[in-house]
Amino acid sequence: MIKPVPRVLEIKKDILAKNDEGAKRNRGVFADRDVVALNFVSSPGAGKTSLLVKTITDIKEKFSITVLEGDQSTSNDARRIAETGVDVTQINTVSACHLDASMIEKALHDIDLSPVDFLFIENVGNLVCPASYDLGELMKIALVSVTEGDDKPEKYPKMFRMSQVLLITKTDLLPHVDFDVKKCIAHARIANPDIKAITLSSKTGVGLDEWYSFLTSLRNKK
Amino acid sequence: MIKPVPRVLEIKKDILAKNDEGAKRNRGVFADRDVVALNFVSSPGAGKTSLLVKTITDIKEKFSITVLEGDQSTSNDARRIAETGVDVTQINTVSACHLDASMIEKALHDIDLSPVDFLFIENVGNLVCPASYDLGELMKIALVSVTEGDDKPEKYPKMFRMSQVLLITKTDLLPHVDFDVKKCIAHARIANPDIKAITLSSKTGVGLDEWYSFLTSLRNKK
Repeated sequence: MIKPVPRVLEIKKDILAKNDEGAKRNRGVFADRDVVALNFVSSPGAGKTSLLVKTITDIKEKFSITVLEGDQSTSNDARRIAETGVDVTQINTVSACHLDASMIEKALHDIDLSPVDFLFIENVGNLVCPASYDLGELMKIALVSVTEGDDKPEKYPKMFRMSQVLLITKTDLLPHVDFDVKKCIAHARIANPDIKAITLSSKTGVGLDEWYSFLTSLRNKK
Repeated sequence: MIKPVPRVLEIKKDILAKNDEGAKRNRGVFADRDVVALNFVSSPGAGKTSLLVKTITDIKEKFSITVLEGDQSTSNDARRIAETGVDVTQINTVSACHLDASMIEKALHDIDLSPVDFLFIENVGNLVCPASYDLGELMKIALVSVTEGDDKPEKYPKMFRMSQVLLITKTDLLPHVDFDVKKCIAHARIANPDIKAITLSSKTGVGLDEWYSFLTSLRNKK
């Protein structure tokens, strides 16, 4: 209904074109080093860090994992990840509302990727901006917690169009909230008919087997 | 740690300076028409719409209210607000991650502000970008739901530095989550020592009396 002025649009095109170049370089590095890079995106507080901590704890004996943590401020999430024993690098975006390819490229300079099976990238909590920035990842994985409402994929469609997996999290809270899992998945599939959906709770462990099977399949395909 | 290139910074300064001019004009209109304009900001799914529906239902006999609804996509929230019987205007931001002053200015052309006591502006669900955009409001009111984690004001400090009120929502879910209300408020007060905090549940009604008293005080001050 209301459009930004053309000048801003042109600048944004420049920025995104430059970002895409960086993403291509990152993608080349990941292919060369045989790394599966996953970009985790969601609202703030959807449970990205909790899921990563649980996942790393459960699969770290089988796979070598490293993590890039994106936050506007603090190293809280990086500290939580570090407690699992895997390598983690914090990127503070300060005023930026998303990670971009150049931030990943710079962080990769200090990481030895040769032994790494999975690079988990936790983006800034934001259902809008990270959708526009390719980091060179194999795929974006979007989380929606059941406390946010089942309409989120309908209200923020681009994020779900750009993601290959929808994880519906915090299902342990389903008895206490109005959230229709089927409706949420249906909304996401309007944005992206091929999106894979998994429902899970990092707290109770329900659904994690399916999530780990999916992760394992990403390695086996390679 | 990683900074955007200067060119982007300059453009952003231009955009924000232009936005501030529009915000000043909006602020002039609100003063002239004796309207209390409040800008509600939060993560997606923190309960902004639910709180507005409940608030409007409870105080609409006493005050005249109109609502501007900001969303990337859909008119779902506007429909929910319209069911209360008050006027509501939907602004779809499409790719933009926040409302800006010019969107409000344009929407105001079609609204008769003379009888209005409160203009409630519901921003796009996003804890980052709306912090930088003054819409001409009297104040920003930031919501954090107890399911998001008590660290949100620490991780997204600018939003809480720019807000005058912190509403901790969905307190009915406190028994089911790990959330320390005092810690959340303490984090918000590091960003903004003067922030007023109210805890409430739109579902059970706990805390709403304090919220309505606060709203009433904003009208009485005028």
